[in-house]
Amino acid sequence: MLAKLELKLKCEKELTYQMSSLFHGALMELLPEKYADYLHISSLHPYAQHLECREGNWYWVITGLNKEAVKIIIQDTLWKLEYILIKKHDLKVLIVKKNYMETTYKELMDHFYEDDGKRYIQIHFLSPTAFKQNGRYLFYPDLRCVFQSLMNKYDSATAENTMHDEDTLEQICEHAQVIRYDLKSVSFSLEGVKIPSFIGKITIKLHGTDTMANFVNMLFEFGEYSGVGIKTSLGMGYMKIINEGGRK
Amino acid sequence: MLAKLELKLKCEKELTYQMSSLFHGALMELLPEKYADYLHISSLHPYAQHLECREGNWYWVITGLNKEAVKIIIQDTLWKLEYILIKKHDLKVLIVKKNYMETTYKELMDHFYEDDGKRYIQIHFLSPTAFKQNGRYLFYPDLRCVFQSLMNKYDSATAENTMHDEDTLEQICEHAQVIRYDLKSVSFSLEGVKIPSFIGKITIKLHGTDTMANFVNMLFEFGEYSGVGIKTSLGMGYMKIINEGGRK
Repeated sequence: MLAKLELKLKCEKELTYQMSSLFHGALMELLPEKYADYLHISSLHPYAQHLECREGNWYWVITGLNKEAVKIIIQDTLWKLEYILIKKHDLKVLIVKKNYMETTYKELMDHFYEDDGKRYIQIHFLSPTAFKQNGRYLFYPDLRCVFQSLMNKYDSATAENTMHDEDTLEQICEHAQVIRYDLKSVSFSLEGVKIPSFIGKITIKLHGTDTMANFVNMLFEFGEYSGVGIKTSLGMGYMKIINEGGRK
Repeated sequence: MLAKLELKLKCEKELTYQMSSLFHGALMELLPEKYADYLHISSLHPYAQHLECREGNWYWVITGLNKEAVKIIIQDTLWKLEYILIKKHDLKVLIVKKNYMETTYKELMDHFYEDDGKRYIQIHFLSPTAFKQNGRYLFYPDLRCVFQSLMNKYDSATAENTMHDEDTLEQICEHAQVIRYDLKSVSFSLEGVKIPSFIGKITIKLHGTDTMANFVNMLFEFGEYSGVGIKTSLGMGYMKIINEGGRK
């Protein structure tokens, strides 16, 4: 099960994208201690969260990537929340509106088997995104890193090692190509450290079989819930598929 | 000798960046036939040209990269020109103002030996830029391609094979790193073919010795005359160093 909860926020001070990690802290304090500890120790990240500004309004968006996370984080903890306290800024943030979306892995998989996956996919990286490769930060959307990250997050959320397969990854990389981009580097501040990252858009063209195109489309659909790259639980790596009306 | 001539233009129709190649055609017709043939056959490009719009005004910028090119192209041919005919668009373009800059390779080299080369260099790619690698277009600023292109253009213009040296190139690449960028893909139309290319800015940080930093600074100073990458004689690859007040 995959779910996304969007909370429209209202507060007296100005919010910023960089405050996502403070909201993560607030969320951890709200969770049952046992589950928070489990998340912390297991290094599993069956959730993601970030702050987002749309038309002058701020939203806190939290996703759950499996049944347990959706139940504990979204339904039990955030569902009835009326405000969040951001202690560091002595800030009380009111929740004035809620929006909830839910889908199943089966539904995602059905797309895989039934649909004609689009051959041109446009991805918008909305919050600072980065990858780690050989211990170094990568602050551009290397396709291998993008696909590998999504596969790993899928396996990590479902606790099945079905996605991440070197041969599949190799094949996707051979048949996917960035044909347009508009990207810029930004930095994401985290506990005084600045993580080099990027935001912006890319358009990917998929060659190869329909099955492969379907698979890549499905990975990105999943990515709209999981985010991509490092520190998605702290507000990085939020992505969306755009250009829905584009060429097939 | 390196020279740059900026001609401020005035005409009744709107000019576009893509018309640079038509201006190249007009230039070739103005040149003495013998020299035009020589340029054509030798595949040497001791010049570059492009159209540029600044504050609503269009400029035709032509550079010469050696004594002969500066004399024949700029001094003998363009110096006294009052208008250019762009036949394809049935367009008479008036030249309303001139600006001329000249420097010597010795002056460039003196910078190399005397100056403290900046450690942070910000480059603005103003016209569509691309590289060719293993027969394929590369439409992002891969640093190896950038440096290799500048070295080759230097050698090609001076007719001395002093710059291009694999070891030096290797060393530069090891010690230079893109730390910021703001880039987007564009396409440059040329005889009906669209060449994938990019425009935008990068900031390069130089590690390593002062000598190497000086060398890279000098290469980019040269690049302001030569342009970088493919088809600089047709209007692509125009670059400028910005952020003069930046950190050393």
